Amino acid sequence: MTDFFNGIPKIAFEGADTTNEFAFRHYNPDEMVMGKPMKDHLRFAAAYWHSFAWPGGDPFGGQTFERPWFGDTMELAKLKADEAFEMFQILGVPYFCFHDADVRPEGANFTENSARLEEIVDYFAEKMDATGVKLLWGTANLFSHRRFMAGAATNPDPEVFAFSAATIKTCMDATMKLGGENYVLWGGREGYETLLNTDMGRERAQAGAMLQMVVDYKHKIGFDGAILIEPKPQEPTKHQYDYDVATVYGFLKDFGLEGEVKVNIEQGHAILAGHTFEHELALARELGIFGSIDMNRNDYQSGWDTDQFPNNVPEMALAYLEVLKAGGFTTGGTNFDAKLRRQSLDAEDLILAHVGGMDACAAGLKAAAAILEDGGLEGARASRYAGWDSEFGKGLMSSDLTSIEAQVRVNDINPEPASGRQERLENLVNRFV
Amino acid sequence: MTDFFNGIPKIAFEGADTTNEFAFRHYNPDEMVMGKPMKDHLRFAAAYWHSFAWPGGDPFGGQTFERPWFGDTMELAKLKADEAFEMFQILGVPYFCFHDADVRPEGANFTENSARLEEIVDYFAEKMDATGVKLLWGTANLFSHRRFMAGAATNPDPEVFAFSAATIKTCMDATMKLGGENYVLWGGREGYETLLNTDMGRERAQAGAMLQMVVDYKHKIGFDGAILIEPKPQEPTKHQYDYDVATVYGFLKDFGLEGEVKVNIEQGHAILAGHTFEHELALARELGIFGSIDMNRNDYQSGWDTDQFPNNVPEMALAYLEVLKAGGFTTGGTNFDAKLRRQSLDAEDLILAHVGGMDACAAGLKAAAAILEDGGLEGARASRYAGWDSEFGKGLMSSDLTSIEAQVRVNDINPEPASGRQERLENLVNRFV
Amino acid sequence: MTDFFNGIPKIAFEGADTTNEFAFRHYNPDEMVMGKPMKDHLRFAAAYWHSFAWPGGDPFGGQTFERPWFGDTMELAKLKADEAFEMFQILGVPYFCFHDADVRPEGANFTENSARLEEIVDYFAEKMDATGVKLLWGTANLFSHRRFMAGAATNPDPEVFAFSAATIKTCMDATMKLGGENYVLWGGREGYETLLNTDMGRERAQAGAMLQMVVDYKHKIGFDGAILIEPKPQEPTKHQYDYDVATVYGFLKDFGLEGEVKVNIEQGHAILAGHTFEHELALARELGIFGSIDMNRNDYQSGWDTDQFPNNVPEMALAYLEVLKAGGFTTGGTNFDAKLRRQSLDAEDLILAHVGGMDACAAGLKAAAAILEDGGLEGARASRYAGWDSEFGKGLMSSDLTSIEAQVRVNDINPEPASGRQERLENLVNRFV
Amino acid sequence: MTDFFNGIPKIAFEGADTTNEFAFRHYNPDEMVMGKPMKDHLRFAAAYWHSFAWPGGDPFGGQTFERPWFGDTMELAKLKADEAFEMFQILGVPYFCFHDADVRPEGANFTENSARLEEIVDYFAEKMDATGVKLLWGTANLFSHRRFMAGAATNPDPEVFAFSAATIKTCMDATMKLGGENYVLWGGREGYETLLNTDMGRERAQAGAMLQMVVDYKHKIGFDGAILIEPKPQEPTKHQYDYDVATVYGFLKDFGLEGEVKVNIEQGHAILAGHTFEHELALARELGIFGSIDMNRNDYQSGWDTDQFPNNVPEMALAYLEVLKAGGFTTGGTNFDAKLRRQSLDAEDLILAHVGGMDACAAGLKAAAAILEDGGLEGARASRYAGWDSEFGKGLMSSDLTSIEAQVRVNDINPEPASGRQERLENLVNRFV
Repeated sequence: MTDFFNGIPKIAFEGADTTNEFAFRHYNPDEMVMGKPMKDHLRFAAAYWHSFAWPGGDPFGGQTFERPWFGDTMELAKLKADEAFEMFQILGVPYFCFHDADVRPEGANFTENSARLEEIVDYFAEKMDATGVKLLWGTANLFSHRRFMAGAATNPDPEVFAFSAATIKTCMDATMKLGGENYVLWGGREGYETLLNTDMGRERAQAGAMLQMVVDYKHKIGFDGAILIEPKPQEPTKHQYDYDVATVYGFLKDFGLEGEVKVNIEQGHAILAGHTFEHELALARELGIFGSIDMNRNDYQSGWDTDQFPNNVPEMALAYLEVLKAGGFTTGGTNFDAKLRRQSLDAEDLILAHVGGMDACAAGLKAAAAILEDGGLEGARASRYAGWDSEFGKGLMSSDLTSIEAQVRVNDINPEPASGRQERLENLVNRFV
Repeated sequence: MTDFFNGIPKIAFEGADTTNEFAFRHYNPDEMVMGKPMKDHLRFAAAYWHSFAWPGGDPFGGQTFERPWFGDTMELAKLKADEAFEMFQILGVPYFCFHDADVRPEGANFTENSARLEEIVDYFAEKMDATGVKLLWGTANLFSHRRFMAGAATNPDPEVFAFSAATIKTCMDATMKLGGENYVLWGGREGYETLLNTDMGRERAQAGAMLQMVVDYKHKIGFDGAILIEPKPQEPTKHQYDYDVATVYGFLKDFGLEGEVKVNIEQGHAILAGHTFEHELALARELGIFGSIDMNRNDYQSGWDTDQFPNNVPEMALAYLEVLKAGGFTTGGTNFDAKLRRQSLDAEDLILAHVGGMDACAAGLKAAAAILEDGGLEGARASRYAGWDSEFGKGLMSSDLTSIEAQVRVNDINPEPASGRQERLENLVNRFV
Repeated sequence: MTDFFNGIPKIAFEGADTTNEFAFRHYNPDEMVMGKPMKDHLRFAAAYWHSFAWPGGDPFGGQTFERPWFGDTMELAKLKADEAFEMFQILGVPYFCFHDADVRPEGANFTENSARLEEIVDYFAEKMDATGVKLLWGTANLFSHRRFMAGAATNPDPEVFAFSAATIKTCMDATMKLGGENYVLWGGREGYETLLNTDMGRERAQAGAMLQMVVDYKHKIGFDGAILIEPKPQEPTKHQYDYDVATVYGFLKDFGLEGEVKVNIEQGHAILAGHTFEHELALARELGIFGSIDMNRNDYQSGWDTDQFPNNVPEMALAYLEVLKAGGFTTGGTNFDAKLRRQSLDAEDLILAHVGGMDACAAGLKAAAAILEDGGLEGARASRYAGWDSEFGKGLMSSDLTSIEAQVRVNDINPEPASGRQERLENLVNRFV
Repeated sequence: MTDFFNGIPKIAFEGADTTNEFAFRHYNPDEMVMGKPMKDHLRFAAAYWHSFAWPGGDPFGGQTFERPWFGDTMELAKLKADEAFEMFQILGVPYFCFHDADVRPEGANFTENSARLEEIVDYFAEKMDATGVKLLWGTANLFSHRRFMAGAATNPDPEVFAFSAATIKTCMDATMKLGGENYVLWGGREGYETLLNTDMGRERAQAGAMLQMVVDYKHKIGFDGAILIEPKPQEPTKHQYDYDVATVYGFLKDFGLEGEVKVNIEQGHAILAGHTFEHELALARELGIFGSIDMNRNDYQSGWDTDQFPNNVPEMALAYLEVLKAGGFTTGGTNFDAKLRRQSLDAEDLILAHVGGMDACAAGLKAAAAILEDGGLEGARASRYAGWDSEFGKGLMSSDLTSIEAQVRVNDINPEPASGRQERLENLVNRFV
């Protein structure tokens, strides 16, 4: 262990008026919100990759962070784990998430990779026992190493498919062993750079076969967590197959897996796909595939994945409103898939970025709950559609064009539009955010 | 009839070297391409709305065009038809497409609307007989009138659903009567402005019910054309439910209609959804729902539907390559859903815009055919995936994670990446465009 | 007068806890903020065009609003004025803004247009006297009529330049007569659709000549308000010459007018140009050309000018922070260049949209003032640059490469980066919004 | 020297019909175009950084390229130079461009950096002598090392300004020594991540001071090349100060340097700023600051700098049309600031990407020349503005609002719009591309 976080206290709730940077202003874990402690609504997780594995590089510059645990040895991997668990405890986050490549140095081949992963998993198990921190989800990094440059499951080379499948197995095993509540698949390289060298039909079939194997293996080993796909439209590739929630749904329906797989929705990925975060959440809920969220913030005007810590409470309230309307999280949670700006060099930055994000989530959640408890918004929505609850409305849904035309003619149906009242509803929401 | 097009000759093919603006340089209808006359590959259609109904307005300015047929009487509607068919003949386009609202003045109610539509349909039938021009597709305009401001099938008011259903029936009847080869649904208002007043679950169910009724009615009347949905991500609404091809596919699967409904893909709508045109075409082909195309061009840097006439031949070659790989059009065709710039005031502009577009399509088609006939591109693609045709590759597709992991360990599978050769393939394509 | 606003009371401040939709929760006109009444900070204005002249159309649909004053007669123009001033009084906005085309029907030629404008100006003068409502700015609509389709000052036809110049004169006269505090130029058609038919050099020179004439005429008539250019990057044209604040600045410098003309910055136009609103405000302040603001909100994901009423308080706080740092408004103010959604049909919607917008501005202003009064943010900024206040720093600014290189070598200057602390500062801001 | 390019022949012109990948189809260096050899029009340069220094990483994955010269020693730096000059000769490019950090390993401090740079410069000088390859421009990499994370000239720490100034001096010295024809400044980190920690006024002043020093030093050492600023709107930072050509122009005017500094315009940067490449070129020409171009291609739908090799000839023709209208390059040229896709692993890919790009440029240039020689386009443009050459038009430019209004009234000037003929002009252009 080092003194990296030395002197940073465990963060406590002090209320909205505190001026202490190292305190929560809104996140009060045991405060009851709609009948449940806030911590059980939010189910916060910290992400290993951004906070502990990322060196601060961007496409025009290299490493800016200097961390005592950077390096390629197992000793440093364990030091990294020590520091990570110290951060989890300082913040009081109940969960964390990781990729295999975040936690162990890259080996010479699959066998070495998996041995190293197992060693770290054992080390994690001890630390989880000791601290009570749990695993929200595990996943395999099938995009950073050059072998994955043309995809993992969708690679034109079947050997890469095989390497990927084997790696997924080890990561599912690790997730199971650590009691993870979900297993996530993000297909960063499952897409294409150019259609000129791509056989989309083959690649789609490969992706379907891999997903079926993942589901089968889940059942085989008795993993009772959820399998989650994380949609993203592009970056690193020109086009990713898991473009958005609607695209994933069509894919799941095509392979008959819509009852087996759900989605992990990231704010930034929603934005890059041209959707609001709340759109993606609402759609997943309506399609029955809502799973978990990756909370962060994408700059609306930067066309790449900025993965900033969230801070706009009015927007976050709309997101948690959809989460609450979906019944809240079951296996899912709020994972901070957010990274420091590369100029934020200090340990304090790492802690305070999470503190601010957690506070913004808590404020958003409370606002969403207040909107639901007030009832005005949902009441207005229901009354707008009230005509569909009439006999006429119900009858239409199972009618046919010929009958409807006759009704329109006979009754001279000539509907007059009614105000959609958007601004009034926006004002209503602003009362609570 | 007026002298609007007076003096503009019927456009003939004169070859690439002509300097005559009023001649085709590439479109030679009977020239054989891959064993079929060019005209049967392209199946051009002109769009009634942009060329004859649109006054030249934009969000910051009103009418610029002055057309002798503008006005609200049936006499002017027939004059408009006269001029339209004159244009079809000047251009030699074998097809046209229309919405009900393009061709008849708006009436006081449904009954008047449908009577007027029938009268014009009879007038069209005579003109089609006389000229040989055919109907590629008909459709209903369920977005311009204020009654549709909150949607047609997805309106919160069931009376609007009923009015829409009745209108669709009349437009399907009209399409059937005129021998139309497809019936198109574009849901310009089927979406939302704000989630705050929207019940996405209800609206989705309404859209599904309407589509089922359309399919049922098609079978009832024995219409043997295709039912086509036209995806668009947004504009006029903040979000449209038929966002893109992948979204439409998921919707069709959800309602069990993927065997009944195909897509009409527009270049500009693809662009607005963040996709290339060729992506949407390739995806529709792989999903088995490719139907027809709306050919136009969207400014890549204007975030609204610019509906320009197409002119970039290298891009269009990539689009027709996907069309050819899909086996070409069956009921579908190349509809110019393109409008003059509002400063292009003259009859000559209207003709020449189409001439340029048709020529660019013809050049694109010929380039695409040459690429396929050369074979180099498809050969490179096939060899990139050759590993999947091996025993090892085939076996993987029906294997499981446990077996694959064992293989990777035992054989120390450690794949080395191979070049994707993108630039070489781009150079190859450039040989033909 | 009609009963359009019948029964809607004058809006009063009731405080944050009110549940009365028709009350201000934050806007308390006489409440002191940083030593000045809130109303004098904000200087609200209502826009005639969106609220009284716009029929609710969009590119895919026509009129949705039904207003008793719609029509082409001078009687209706006066009724419109009656209703407008009633709204100004209900809301308690101290200012309004208008284009000539908003307030008078289009005449047959320039002479008729100007006579009609004069008649309405007299009518306005009486109403302004009676109500105390003042004119923030006037402007000429040089973009809606078809004569302006290819530009006003930048038109290829000098007659259009002349017509535009004459119209600007009448609008400046009207603004002067009504005691307007600014005169605005928004060049919606001053740009191009295609470079192919454009002579950018000529058009730029024409725009410079026109602006010089406007400045000369201001001095000639003794108008002591500000001349303001309103930047916008595109829409309706492909490219507008007044793209953004930086572009306008270069143009002003080129014609030597940077001391004579300032900018009116619109949130939505900033967004469309790829900038944040606060960026444009800060840049204008640094360049000494900050004038006034058009407050609204653009959907970040719709590529056209959505002109929504503002409601995101955290974002608005950052905008008012820049306004306060610029010393606040002098002749400028907060004009709501915002329109109802076209589905918001009712008089109540029109009032409540403004109420919500005014409240959000007031909340944003108070948050910005609190940030400045706290001092933490400005203090952090100052200390980040403290090195530049040292002798070494000051000396660098007037040094040369040779001397600096020598210093670097001799002293082995090898700077170590310091944290930029972005997340901490974001957290700090969140304490106040 | 290694056998990296072993077996790849020197590329020769074989004409449009060749099927030899390793031949030029359009680039025929000595072919006369508008009275000048093609090579003197195009003045091709290869970029050291993308082709020899970039390892193939992206934000989600690391190195894919394996090059014998990768590493941190001076020996490898010289091997890299050997290979680079071999590529220049294979391609027959007359020029190259480099940053200091491309060509020498990073040292421990400024003194070591500059010593290493000098050693490589001497090595380059020998190779340039031997091969005849020349330096189009040199530049300093002030963005990759962590010391520059918050900017170079605009850093809050004056020591970084000093380090940057010293580095620029060494790079200007190197450029001068090697006979470079331009010196380029690209301010990748001259901007901000967040306004919250930024003093835009100070940073702008720092940038102005640095640019003045560069200009002074140029004169001091008698460098007779051009100083070029390369605009880019964002990435890596949220906002870069040299946003686009218009912004750079305003900056130059502000510091009185518009006669001393020109611009190096990159296609991809133009696209990211919301402009077409030809817009930026035309604007620079009209403002008198056109210098050189970085030729590449940005994916229109990826919001980051994709730096692809160019291949769309119709678009490139429009760019070279502006270059020709500007009088062609003087000190400037066509630098390929383009990189292989990271999956294009092979030496052949590196050569063929350049071959394809050079051919596309040559085809674009020839089309542009043909358009100018035809004269139709320029003739149409001139006649559209002909009114401005009349006495009436000329008089307007120096008139005033009062006189113009009188003319409009007296003569009842009521202009009728004329067609802008956009589609006809697009068709005309398509005859040549």
